[in-house]
Order: sequence, then structure tokens, then C-alpha cells
Amino acid sequence: MDVRVGVIGVGMIGQDHIRRITQVLTGGSVTAVNDVDTARAGQVAAVLPGVGQHRVSVHATAQDLIADGNVDAVLVASWGPAHEEQVVAAIGAGKPVFCEKPLAPASDACLRIMEAEMAAGRRLVQVGFMRRYDAGYRAMKAALDDSGIGAPLLMHCAHRNPSVPDYGFTTDMIISDSAVHEMDIVRWLFGEEIVAATVLTPRRAGQAPDGLQDPLILLLEMANGVLVDDELFVSARYGYDVRGEVVCETGTVALADVSEVTVRAQNRYGGRVPVDWRDRFIRAYDAELQEWLNAVAAGSAAGPSSWDGYAAAAVTDAALEALRTGQRTAVSMPERPEFYAK
Amino acid sequence: MDVRVGVIGVGMIGQDHIRRITQVLTGGSVTAVNDVDTARAGQVAAVLPGVGQHRVSVHATAQDLIADGNVDAVLVASWGPAHEEQVVAAIGAGKPVFCEKPLAPASDACLRIMEAEMAAGRRLVQVGFMRRYDAGYRAMKAALDDSGIGAPLLMHCAHRNPSVPDYGFTTDMIISDSAVHEMDIVRWLFGEEIVAATVLTPRRAGQAPDGLQDPLILLLEMANGVLVDDELFVSARYGYDVRGEVVCETGTVALADVSEVTVRAQNRYGGRVPVDWRDRFIRAYDAELQEWLNAVAAGSAAGPSSWDGYAAAAVTDAALEALRTGQRTAVSMPERPEFYAK
Amino acid sequence: MDVRVGVIGVGMIGQDHIRRITQVLTGGSVTAVNDVDTARAGQVAAVLPGVGQHRVSVHATAQDLIADGNVDAVLVASWGPAHEEQVVAAIGAGKPVFCEKPLAPASDACLRIMEAEMAAGRRLVQVGFMRRYDAGYRAMKAALDDSGIGAPLLMHCAHRNPSVPDYGFTTDMIISDSAVHEMDIVRWLFGEEIVAATVLTPRRAGQAPDGLQDPLILLLEMANGVLVDDELFVSARYGYDVRGEVVCETGTVALADVSEVTVRAQNRYGGRVPVDWRDRFIRAYDAELQEWLNAVAAGSAAGPSSWDGYAAAAVTDAALEALRTGQRTAVSMPERPEFYAK
Amino acid sequence: MDVRVGVIGVGMIGQDHIRRITQVLTGGSVTAVNDVDTARAGQVAAVLPGVGQHRVSVHATAQDLIADGNVDAVLVASWGPAHEEQVVAAIGAGKPVFCEKPLAPASDACLRIMEAEMAAGRRLVQVGFMRRYDAGYRAMKAALDDSGIGAPLLMHCAHRNPSVPDYGFTTDMIISDSAVHEMDIVRWLFGEEIVAATVLTPRRAGQAPDGLQDPLILLLEMANGVLVDDELFVSARYGYDVRGEVVCETGTVALADVSEVTVRAQNRYGGRVPVDWRDRFIRAYDAELQEWLNAVAAGSAAGPSSWDGYAAAAVTDAALEALRTGQRTAVSMPERPEFYAK
Repeated sequence: MDVRVGVIGVGMIGQDHIRRITQVLTGGSVTAVNDVDTARAGQVAAVLPGVGQHRVSVHATAQDLIADGNVDAVLVASWGPAHEEQVVAAIGAGKPVFCEKPLAPASDACLRIMEAEMAAGRRLVQVGFMRRYDAGYRAMKAALDDSGIGAPLLMHCAHRNPSVPDYGFTTDMIISDSAVHEMDIVRWLFGEEIVAATVLTPRRAGQAPDGLQDPLILLLEMANGVLVDDELFVSARYGYDVRGEVVCETGTVALADVSEVTVRAQNRYGGRVPVDWRDRFIRAYDAELQEWLNAVAAGSAAGPSSWDGYAAAAVTDAALEALRTGQRTAVSMPERPEFYAK
Repeated sequence: MDVRVGVIGVGMIGQDHIRRITQVLTGGSVTAVNDVDTARAGQVAAVLPGVGQHRVSVHATAQDLIADGNVDAVLVASWGPAHEEQVVAAIGAGKPVFCEKPLAPASDACLRIMEAEMAAGRRLVQVGFMRRYDAGYRAMKAALDDSGIGAPLLMHCAHRNPSVPDYGFTTDMIISDSAVHEMDIVRWLFGEEIVAATVLTPRRAGQAPDGLQDPLILLLEMANGVLVDDELFVSARYGYDVRGEVVCETGTVALADVSEVTVRAQNRYGGRVPVDWRDRFIRAYDAELQEWLNAVAAGSAAGPSSWDGYAAAAVTDAALEALRTGQRTAVSMPERPEFYAK
Repeated sequence: MDVRVGVIGVGMIGQDHIRRITQVLTGGSVTAVNDVDTARAGQVAAVLPGVGQHRVSVHATAQDLIADGNVDAVLVASWGPAHEEQVVAAIGAGKPVFCEKPLAPASDACLRIMEAEMAAGRRLVQVGFMRRYDAGYRAMKAALDDSGIGAPLLMHCAHRNPSVPDYGFTTDMIISDSAVHEMDIVRWLFGEEIVAATVLTPRRAGQAPDGLQDPLILLLEMANGVLVDDELFVSARYGYDVRGEVVCETGTVALADVSEVTVRAQNRYGGRVPVDWRDRFIRAYDAELQEWLNAVAAGSAAGPSSWDGYAAAAVTDAALEALRTGQRTAVSMPERPEFYAK
Repeated sequence: MDVRVGVIGVGMIGQDHIRRITQVLTGGSVTAVNDVDTARAGQVAAVLPGVGQHRVSVHATAQDLIADGNVDAVLVASWGPAHEEQVVAAIGAGKPVFCEKPLAPASDACLRIMEAEMAAGRRLVQVGFMRRYDAGYRAMKAALDDSGIGAPLLMHCAHRNPSVPDYGFTTDMIISDSAVHEMDIVRWLFGEEIVAATVLTPRRAGQAPDGLQDPLILLLEMANGVLVDDELFVSARYGYDVRGEVVCETGTVALADVSEVTVRAQNRYGGRVPVDWRDRFIRAYDAELQEWLNAVAAGSAAGPSSWDGYAAAAVTDAALEALRTGQRTAVSMPERPEFYAK
């Protein structure tokens, strides 16, 4: 039987996950929704099919949704600051929860979620770091394990967005919203924690919104000495381009371009660069949520854990401090609890 | 509610479609199976979940399966020579049918299927030419329409398999089983029929199974003069490699390599070539069957039609004659019925 | 001491060779020129440095130039129909001669040159098939020998020019002027003669000059069964693009794109396609003429021989007949004389 | 008439330049040699052709060679610490001098060379930074000027050697011998001076010689804010790989791979990585020396100047200090004299 999912937060991302569960993936149905904008929640629910006789319920509060007997599992796509309370409530109800990133904006809030989950005695939380499900990063990880190119020594990353809103997007958000993806993916690729961060500020792009220091270079040091340099450039105009090359002792492995065809015209040959993150990572989003539905149906848990969500928050803290001070900043983290052993 | 699918033929391909409907796609359930090997049908059914209380039915005959009230739509993955009778029966029962290629090995059998479908008054048949759902060919078709590179003039194709069985695979099958994919895809890409075929026999690969003329070059002439050369090489050893470049008046568009990563090691850089057709086209298979389920649920029909299945058979006839005679051979086909207008 | 070169024909190609000898290569000087347009010859000579005290001589006839005691070796860059007389005269004078392609337009004229050279008792003629000196084809030949990919079975070629003159360029010239390069290069790559030719006429490009059948497909059959398909498209607009892929038993080797940089802009990534043959093959022209100067200085001979020039003419004859008749046409050639053993 | 070159230092690099002048380039002859190992100088001279009647002179001292009336210009390929005295002497004799990098190991020695040259009143020195003559970097610079991708903001470089000697190669030499090429090329690409350097030490490659910190990351800050990260990895085993990508406001330009062919075999496709610096940059070495010969013949000067040699030394000083201290280190340089205006 389908996993009955209640969705908290039906903005752009929440609606996209609903579309995914309803039209793309197998084994899940949306049975309830909630949003701070109740009218929006109602509109979204009205066009959903429901399950059998049952229409999709619209709940006034996240708590009501979590308590709904027709909800087996909870998908949290609300505003970041609301995540802690909602995730902890789902854990309290013993219901598996998929939480969009960030698990919580504050690292201590993430720690409280971990405590709740450990108290519950089993993993209930999957965090939405979808890049781990991208075919490119998967092939990269496989190559690190299988290609006979030795131990990883360093990694070059680039994360380029065509544009960000002219107002409201701050330099801090380049760290907390963009770089957080590399923070997670390098932890996953190398199976190591990040121990320090440094932020460099190159020449500023003339077209960057007023007040935005764009691009940035973020340097991340892994526990085993692997050094990651991450170029973050959110006004790069030419496309959405995520690049990565891991340099190992006797070879390297890099994300390939993803164009389906090569065109020759007007004295040029080449392929296309994705237009946005959706274009680039749509299959990864599908795969992460399918894995979640499968795990919930099987009574197990998979994917990025609360610990991963916490680690990303702790590294973000250090990187923001590094941005403020211009200094290399150590990441402050406790030991990984046995509960979250790999 | 899910489309309830009855599957006729549960060999490798039938089982793969069952896995797809059950574990990957949305909106479909397998409710009944049939196979000439009844024991195999029972084993396959035993591990399927069924729908609600109902276990999956195992039918002794294809006719029984088609008549089953719990079967909304039929998937035919049986032996080619059995297709005509099964597809016609499904049409007779007014049930949509997905038929693996070939629609029927003989072109006149395909014509009889078309007649049955036209008599039924609506499209009920989708043929399994999955390449039309491949992201590469889709992007190629989009580029032909959008890239401002003029009208297509010719196309170079290559279709390389690492190997075929040492016994039982004949030179004719290079045409009927391998080249049939290019026959369909060029008809779809250019929106034109194929009017003639010629087969050339280059130097034979030493490792080809005894008696097999491998590789071949198949030349296809489209109604508008576009000329297609198709290299068919089924003992190519190095991988499964499907290539294509359309040469237009002022530019070209080609399928790109599909490797997810680039590795640098031992004085080489590069990516991987797929190991087999599954590796290369798995997403296309998913997409074609999802489109079928969606169309069935919507009461409509989509994808390659009986006419497309017939055209492939007619071109295959001409190409086999060309192989036998060494001569350019015209394709003999009636006008496309209005019923199958694009 | 420098090889003193007399240049017959100082049109575009002759002047380019003079520039090469004078400003790029080592070991050669131009001491004499001749042209049917004597005024042009004088203008070209006037701006050349000469050697030591000696100014560059301007000769009224090719014969005078060949007889000049200050000319060690002759470069023939005149009109094709004049080649036979000039090359035979140089041979008669015992002077090495570099002859631009074609050695002679008519294959029997090439045979007479061979007879003269054999009578002289040593190789004196190098024909200007510069592709043999291209780094791409050199690497391709090395890969055929060294890459462990088995025997060659077939080859796909494309030869695309951005444009040809609106008047005076005939369909025959696509064979005799363009395809002749592939005729020579496949003979060199595979060490085999071409035994038959067929010409196919795909859909015509709308922008092709009136009366020109463009593109063409030329099929060449090698003595060992290797089949070559050569797309010839001289109004291809988008650039000068020479492509080639040799399909061997267990792998393939293809010419790579030659762009020095990859640019990412406006949702595209990619490189440049050469603008013309000069852009693509300039280094090959340099290398062929340097090899000629070196061979002359050493008293030896190298590179494409009179036999190679003859073979290209014989295959051209067959291909032109194939174009006229639409039929596969055998190449008519005697045995290769021992004198021209590889 | 040929430029008559005297070569000081006939080790591997000096001999390679002699081969170049003698067998590859036009307009130059070697008329004299000198080496600290006089026997070696004699052996090298013995096999050279000389000019006309004159044999190549072997001089006991660099001073004698510089004074030789048959020497028009001097090529310095001796040990770095000897450069200052030899270059200053050549300047004193009013003879143009090509000096292999480094101009001098110590930056104050470079300043003294500049003073001598300014006193002479005209540019006489070209420094051997050959990358400026590489087709890849030339195309990159052209793209920066012409591609409409906005101002440069940052650059990613990688400089990988397959190996270094097990003894005698120090971590300092990764800066002074390897990174010096990027120091020069970024100054040339961006037309800006480097103002600060930082060195990072990633995880060490297990195969690096004892005591060698390999790889390194060198960060260079340009006067206009452009930030360069340069990965230096001299035990990279897999090949000699020089990479670079300039990130501009609205696009990027990167060095392309330089493989002439693409091979498909054993489930891989791809090209070759150069085996060593010679393989990668041989044409750049040819081009730089041809430009020098041309400039000498024309009585002018071209290419990297004494100022460029000095700037590289000053940046090297800062980078070595940064390596020692682990701190960002400002480059200490005077204003560029008007004499060396771009």
C-alpha cells in the first residue's frame, strides 16, 4: 500500500515534491497538507486526487497534520526557522520525516533534533541533500572507490547560478544556501568531517546585486587533510553550472558536462549548460524522494541523516564566521554519536 | 486509480517491464500474467504484491488474460510471431495494448493489426520503440526544430553491440532486430517515410560468430531525399555505442557521449561507454511505459502507433531483400491512412 | 647550405609556399620564380630577399627556370594541366620536384611522369598531399598500429567546406578537388589500394550554388575490404570541418576537435570549428615542405610519390564515372611497380 | 642574413635550443658555444654545421663568447646563478640576449639587469617564459579580449607533472621552478601585477619523494582583485597536465585538452594526456625562439622582458615566504619603470 504523506509547506518546493509523489514516483500518496497560508494550502489540496474515497485534508497547523491518522510520514518544506518544531513533533509521533535543507538554520536546533531522534531510538529523519542522488556524484564516488587512482588529496568545486534576486539575497546566503550543498557532498564523497573553513573574496562581478560580494571562494579542510576549494558565483549569467574535480594520488575524476547533444553551427561546436538547478538536478530530486518512500515503506531509514544536517549547519556557522573575520575558522562539532555511525 | 495491467510473456523483457510498473513508475499495477511457460508465469506472479486483497492472476492463455475483468490494459512481451493474435484480441476487447517490438515480424500481419484498430475506431496500440523517449534523441529532434541549422540533408548512424550469441544470431537479425531501431527513429526525427534500402558489406570482423556478416552498412533513403547511413556492428566488443549525427544545411546535431564523469589516469582522459542497451536506454524504457500508463489512464493513446510498427516491418522487408540481392530495394508501402495522421 | 628552390606558379598557393620557405622553414631559399603572368612573377620576386648578393631570378618559361644553375629543386604550383610537362622537365634535369596536387589531372599523364621518374632511376617527385603530415592523421595512424584495437573494417569521413565560389565550381570538382584528399589519406592510413567507388546523392542543400549537387556521399572500397564512406559537403556554411573515424575490430579511433580553448557563455559550452583549410592544416603544409627540403638536402626522397599521385587520379576517374552513371565503378590500375614499393 | 647566435650553456636545454635554431627555425645560425664543461661544449660544437667556411667556435668563457665578432646575439642557458653576470655582459656589448628562466634566481639581481638594460637605452633582453607562445594560452587571451564574457574575476590553474627526481627536488622548487610559469602567465593574461601570495598544503600524496610537500595550492592576488588558485602537483603520475579556466563576469574560458584523436576501446572513450612538458609545449618553445630571432634581425625586441623576469622573481620571493610562514604575504615591488611600459 502507498505511503500516505502529509506535506507541511506548499510553496514552490513543497508543490514540486507533491507533483513528484503524485505524478512521477511510485509507492506514495499525498493525503494531507498544511501551510502558513491556509488559502494556498486549500488551493493545492483541491486539485490533488486524494486516495480512494478520501479527499486530501487541509490542516490548520503542522501539529494537526502530524497527528492525522491518515498520515504515515511527513514531508517538511516549510520556512527553515519552523523546521525544528515540526521535525521534533513528527519524531514525537513516531512518524518518518523528510526535511528539506536546512534541517534547521541554527546548529543547536539541529542538535536538539538529533537528541529527539536518539531518544526515539531509531532513525526517522532524512534531510534533503539531493546531490547525493545525482548520477554524476554517484559515478564520482564509485570512481573514487574503483578506479585505482589512489587516495583523494584535494577537490576543486564550482557552483554557478545564472542569477539571484536583486533584493533580499545576502552574501551570507551564498554560504548558507549555495555552499551548503558542497559542504554535504564532500562529507559524503570522502566519508570525513570538515574541520575548518576560510572564505576568500575575489574581484566582484559588476552585475552582482548591490551589496553582494559575488563570487566567493570557500576553502574547506577535511579531517584527513583533503582540501576543497569551492568557487561560489551566483550571478554568473551564462547558466547553472556545477563542476567538481577530485584530485587523487594518481588520477582525477571530474563531473562531465551533461548535454545530450552536440551542435555544430556558426564556427562553434558544443553543448548546452543547464538553465537552472531544476534542469540540472531534477532526476536527483526524484531519486532522493523515491528512496525515502521506499525506506518508509520498508520501515527503515536512508539517505542524509540528522547528523548530516547538523554537520552542514556547524560548517555553515564556521564559514559565516570566516566570511566575517577574513580568518580561517575551525568547525566546532562534538564527536559523531554511535547512533549515527556510517 | 492505478491502471491494472495484464502482462503476456514474462521472459527477460516482460519481467523488466513488470519491475518497472511495480517499482519505478506511477499509476500502474500488474494484476495478471500469462506465459507459454506456465510455471515461469506462476513464479513471477508469486513474488508480486497484487492490488489490495487481490493476488496476481496467472492465466493459462493470453485470451483468458485479455478477458480478465481486472485487466484494464495489456502489455505484450511474448515471442514476436504470437504478437498479431494477442494484439488483435486486445483490440477486440477494447483494451489498450503496449506491444514490444516488432509489432509483428511480417508486414502483412502488421497491416491486419492496423485494420483491426481502425475497425475499433480509436487508437489502442503503442509499439515499444523506446528510443523516441531517449533524452538524446529528444534533444536532437528539438535541435532540428529550434537550432536554426536549416533542413536535414543526411544522417550518420552507428549501432554497436559488444557481442551477440555465438549460435542462433543471423545476419538477417542485424537488420530485423538491430537496424529496426534506426528505421523507426529516422522516421520519427524527420517525419518522413523511408522509400528505399541498400545494404553494404564491409570487411568482416574476425571475432564475429561463424557465418555472421558483421559489420554491415545500411543505407536508407527518406521520401524527401534525406540519406541515412547506418553502421551496424554487433560484435564490436568495446561497448554498447549508439551514435548519430544529423547533417543539416548550415549545421549538425549529434548524440553526445553519456558518461557522467571524466577520469584522468595513466596518460589518458575520458569517460565510459555503456556496457549494454539496458545501461544506455534504461530511462527511455521507463519514460515510454510511463507515457503509456498516462495515456491509458487518460483514455487516450500516444507514442509509436501500429502504422509505425508496420512501417518498420515494411522497411525491414526491403532491407532484407537488399541484403540478399546486393541491390538497392524500394520499400513497398501503401499510403498512410488518415486514421494514423501525425 | 640552403636548398635553392625555383617556384613555378606564384598564385595564392605558390606565394604561400614561398612565404613558408622564406619565413617559416629552415634550410631552403627561393632563388627563381616563373608564372604565366610574368608581371605577377616580377612583383613576387621584387619583395623576396634573394640569397647573398643574388636577387631572385624571374624566368620567362618554366623550362628556363628548371635549367637555372641556381635552382637545386623545383616547386610546381602552376595550373594542373601544366604539371606533366613541368614535372617531366624537372625530372629530365635531374632536379627534385615538389608538385602540388593533382600530380596531373589525367591519370595517363601521371603514368608518363612515373615512367620518366623510373627512367631517371631514382625518386625525384613529392606530391602535395599534406594531410599525411597532419598531427591528427598521424596520431590516427599510430593508434591503428599501436592501440590494440584490431584490424580496420570501415571508416567514416566527412569533409565540409563553408562555401565554394558561386560560379565555376562543378559537382565533378567535389570529387576531383575535395574528395581527392580522402582518396589519398585512406590509401596511406590502411596501406591498401582503392578498388571501387560509388557516389550517392543525398537531398541537396538549398544554399548550394545553382547546378551543384551538394552534398555527396562517396563510397570507397579498399583492396582488403575496408569500406570508406566520405560525406562531401562544400556549402556547409558553419565552418571547415574534416572528420574521420576508423572502426576497427575491437575499438575505434577518430580525429578530435582541434579547438585550443573551451568557452562557456550564454548557456552553451564548446570550442571553435576552423574557418578554412588554411586554419585547419597550416601546420601540415609546413611539415610537408620541411620534409621535402630535408629530403632534397639529404639527396633522398620522401612523402607521397608519383605512384600516389597516379592512384589518386585513377580513383578520381572511377569516382567521376560513378557520379555520371550512378553505378559502382571499379578502379582501373596496373600493379604498383617495384620502384614504388612502400 | 642569418642571426649568428652564441649559446652559453649546452646542457639539455641549451642543446635543445641549438637543435631548434639549426633544424627547425629560420633565420638563425649557431656560431659559438660556451659551457662550464668545456669538453661538452667541444662535443656539441663538433657536430654542428657552422656557417659557410666557419666552424662553430668553442669559447673558454662566457665573456669571450660575448665578445666574439661572429656572434650577433646571445642565448643564455647556463645555471641560474650565472645568468646575471652573463646577461649584463651581453647588454654591455650591445648584443641582444635570450635568457632562459629564471632571469636570475634573486630578485635584486634581476633589478641590476634592468638597470643595465635601461642604461643601454633599449630593450635587449627576452626571458624564456614560453607559455606566452602556447596556442592554448594565446586563444585564451584572445577570448578574454573578444568573447564578450566580461571582466575576469578569478582563475583556476592546475600544473601537474608525472614525477620529479627522488633526491634534490625541494618543496621550494615547486614554487620557484613550477609555479613561476603561472606567475608569469597570469600577469600576461590579465595585464596586471601580482600583489600577494598564500600557500596552502593539502593532504600529501603518498608517492611524493620523502620530505616533499606535494601537492600545494598557491593563491595569487592580482592588483585588480582577480584571484588565482594554482594547484601544483609534481608527483601526479598520470601525465603532464596543465589546466586553466578564467572565470569572467558572464562566461568562462578554459584550456582544452590537446589530444589529436579520440579512441574508443574497452568500454572507455577518450584522449591522451601529454607525457611531459616537452610533449605539451614543444611548439611554444619553437615559437618563442623564432620570435626572438625575428626581433633580433629586425633590430627590435619582443616577448617577456627583464621586468617580467624581475616580477616573477619578486612573486617567487613572496610565495616562498608564504610557504615558510603559512601566511598571506604581500609582494614587494617598485613601480614599473616607464622604460618597460607595456
